Amino acid sequence: MAHRLEKRINGLVESLMGDYSLGRDIDTINPFTHPDKKAVTDLLDKLRSIIYPGVFRNSSYRYYTIRNHISMLLEDVLYNLIAQIAYVLKYTDDYAGASSEETRARAEEIALEFLERIPKIREFIDTDVQAAFDGDPAAFNKEEIIFSYPGLYAIMVARIAHELFLLGVPLIPRMMTEHAHSLTGIDIHPGASIGKYFFIDHGTGIVIGETTEIGNNVKIYQGVTLGALSTRGGQQLRNKKRHPTIRDNVTIYSGASILGGETVVGENVVIGGNVFITKSVPDGARVSIKNQELRFNYDPKHPLAQEDFQQAEDWYYII
Amino acid sequence: MAHRLEKRINGLVESLMGDYSLGRDIDTINPFTHPDKKAVTDLLDKLRSIIYPGVFRNSSYRYYTIRNHISMLLEDVLYNLIAQIAYVLKYTDDYAGASSEETRARAEEIALEFLERIPKIREFIDTDVQAAFDGDPAAFNKEEIIFSYPGLYAIMVARIAHELFLLGVPLIPRMMTEHAHSLTGIDIHPGASIGKYFFIDHGTGIVIGETTEIGNNVKIYQGVTLGALSTRGGQQLRNKKRHPTIRDNVTIYSGASILGGETVVGENVVIGGNVFITKSVPDGARVSIKNQELRFNYDPKHPLAQEDFQQAEDWYYII
Amino acid sequence: MAHRLEKRINGLVESLMGDYSLGRDIDTINPFTHPDKKAVTDLLDKLRSIIYPGVFRNSSYRYYTIRNHISMLLEDVLYNLIAQIAYVLKYTDDYAGASSEETRARAEEIALEFLERIPKIREFIDTDVQAAFDGDPAAFNKEEIIFSYPGLYAIMVARIAHELFLLGVPLIPRMMTEHAHSLTGIDIHPGASIGKYFFIDHGTGIVIGETTEIGNNVKIYQGVTLGALSTRGGQQLRNKKRHPTIRDNVTIYSGASILGGETVVGENVVIGGNVFITKSVPDGARVSIKNQELRFNYDPKHPLAQEDFQQAEDWYYII
Repeated sequence: MAHRLEKRINGLVESLMGDYSLGRDIDTINPFTHPDKKAVTDLLDKLRSIIYPGVFRNSSYRYYTIRNHISMLLEDVLYNLIAQIAYVLKYTDDYAGASSEETRARAEEIALEFLERIPKIREFIDTDVQAAFDGDPAAFNKEEIIFSYPGLYAIMVARIAHELFLLGVPLIPRMMTEHAHSLTGIDIHPGASIGKYFFIDHGTGIVIGETTEIGNNVKIYQGVTLGALSTRGGQQLRNKKRHPTIRDNVTIYSGASILGGETVVGENVVIGGNVFITKSVPDGARVSIKNQELRFNYDPKHPLAQEDFQQAEDWYYII
Repeated sequence: MAHRLEKRINGLVESLMGDYSLGRDIDTINPFTHPDKKAVTDLLDKLRSIIYPGVFRNSSYRYYTIRNHISMLLEDVLYNLIAQIAYVLKYTDDYAGASSEETRARAEEIALEFLERIPKIREFIDTDVQAAFDGDPAAFNKEEIIFSYPGLYAIMVARIAHELFLLGVPLIPRMMTEHAHSLTGIDIHPGASIGKYFFIDHGTGIVIGETTEIGNNVKIYQGVTLGALSTRGGQQLRNKKRHPTIRDNVTIYSGASILGGETVVGENVVIGGNVFITKSVPDGARVSIKNQELRFNYDPKHPLAQEDFQQAEDWYYII
Repeated sequence: MAHRLEKRINGLVESLMGDYSLGRDIDTINPFTHPDKKAVTDLLDKLRSIIYPGVFRNSSYRYYTIRNHISMLLEDVLYNLIAQIAYVLKYTDDYAGASSEETRARAEEIALEFLERIPKIREFIDTDVQAAFDGDPAAFNKEEIIFSYPGLYAIMVARIAHELFLLGVPLIPRMMTEHAHSLTGIDIHPGASIGKYFFIDHGTGIVIGETTEIGNNVKIYQGVTLGALSTRGGQQLRNKKRHPTIRDNVTIYSGASILGGETVVGENVVIGGNVFITKSVPDGARVSIKNQELRFNYDPKHPLAQEDFQQAEDWYYII
């Protein structure tokens, strides 16, 4: 019996070894040339501590001054960031054939430039916290927003990832935003540019595409898509503007879809729930679904009086 | 080179130390006055073991009687809960200036009162398990529901968090429901009150707002919003009834939105998929979208016969 | 004080012990007869390493040949899989009264048959990677898809779970797909059968029901439901075809719902965003919402010229 099992396991190994040698992408054995997911999420955790210096509990606060703590944290982030960036630069056309010294030097320069942008990132996130507090009557205080609001977390990660994206780092920015996507259900591509005072409420199901541009003081709810009209062109559409532009002071309610690279939503616009937009909207407009017609029946076990029906007809033409 | 790098790191530290001193909310250094996320999720895990005493595997069952096991678990939960509640009470107006003895005494009282409500919570969850089993033909058995169904997990956490919310605990209830939101995509505010036999199927994208009231035997599907009509009033709307009331025996299919604090969905109502409701619905009504008009084209590479189009016209007026 | 507290804790223990003895499902104390969640997710991680042999970093690559590494991994997976399957077989009618030798022998046979299907699973996943690369202009390379795309992860888990489902394993397949659901917001029931070149973009909020059949080269977006028309029949509907059939080369855009076991979406069909379908669609059709009527207002603080309104009327009849 044990012998029979051993034989069958050997057969499995042979079968897999044969399967691995078919030369498909899935068979490529290349374990040391890609970023480490754990290292990337660890970077995010440490960057979060740098962004909110006082909020995230760390026992080392007891023993070190803030300055020492931040120095240690920054050095740690810097060295890990350089290592991860050096890995992924090999995937780019420019560094595919470069020496490891050249690659390392470029990774170091990118990592330092990125860290020098943290005050700018913090300036924006401070406005995001304010926007969440102003926008949500259920918010108890700003600590609650920083601790508990998935929208703020997704925005923070998107802002970090966007700076790395702008510095030409491949793979890592998307790994960061997909980590946030997994935790929050909010899918913001690192390429999207986002102004100050951005507020995401609830957030699950939100998709914000790569070439989206969002102005200041914009508020969006769960299930909103800022997407492309069609991706039939596939890889040929790469780097084309495929996603909408949202100007300042816009509110987009839950389930709305705004699609297309030439679609511009003007200043001070409000887009109602479930609205489906594929053309531009002028400044100041309030857009909502017109007369969603509903039909109703009634349960014979719970009859309505005839006059109830008459009344009902009215309020089924809603919004 | 190393010297240059050290200088640049020092520059980063100086820049951040300067940035931290700008006095914005984001700069507040206050690490020991907030609840610990890990402690809160650990509490949830242990409360889950208390709620389902037999289902969650624990090696200590081998060595102790159930009574000893539960005593240990309860004491552990009690002490941690007191510590976390004492932290957050400082945020409330009543305890902002209280002594730590007063705060601790109140935290202890709240924690004990909460634990005394566990039999009530269990009574409700037992009905939720039954509702999931009755409502889902894909359910294999009740163990599967308890192990695998994200809806049941989100409901359990909401019931726990709601009791803490009613006892006046700030921050912690929302941290609990946001933990469940992150795992399940289901966002139930701890303020929402929910009757017995509540069933959530699939669940991703569901939002249930703070002042929602839900009766007994209610069933809701993925993507449903029980929300506010508008939150333009911001913090001034706090504690106002902004979210709908759902009476007994109501089913709400996927993607439906029911909005507004004065909106009441009557008993035995069925709300169809994607319906958008901002006014009350009387008892016994079945509401669905009326004639969603669809248009169609055809792919010239796959032509339809003319008679197919004629036929097609009919069934494009669907539901 | 301490004495009073001890008394109250004792009271809590008594109250819970009484509550546990009420004989409801929730009270069943049965800790060693169910699969271990951690063991199941560990299995998924190791199966992922077997499926992508080179991509997932593992330090043992340094010390062993690939063949040795795979042998060790396979043996590890095999033994754990046998143990977990043996646990859950007890829940089935056939093995409820079987000896542990019989159960173990069947579990071993199922585990081996499952592992022998891995090359077939890999063949399908290789096509899924290609479909994602062809379908998403934002994809940097195939490594990014394998590392970061939640859609591909959810499909991989669904393909693994589906084979275990076909081999008659209860509970474990659903635990696997609910693990993926938690990480991705994509809820694919293990019963669903899915052809080659399947691409899920963004994915959050997708629900694919137990009896869904999906052909080759199908592409679906976030928020799509492939669901049942009604589940009022509850447990009596078990094993009935309740979910739609999607034929080859179909694209389904975000937020669309396709419902019902007799609903067949023909070859080469495109279903537009937010379309709600409950009847079959013939080959080659392009279905979209016809004239979603929108209404608009304007903000008196940001008036539009009268001619702007005239223009606006036009483009509010959109799609």
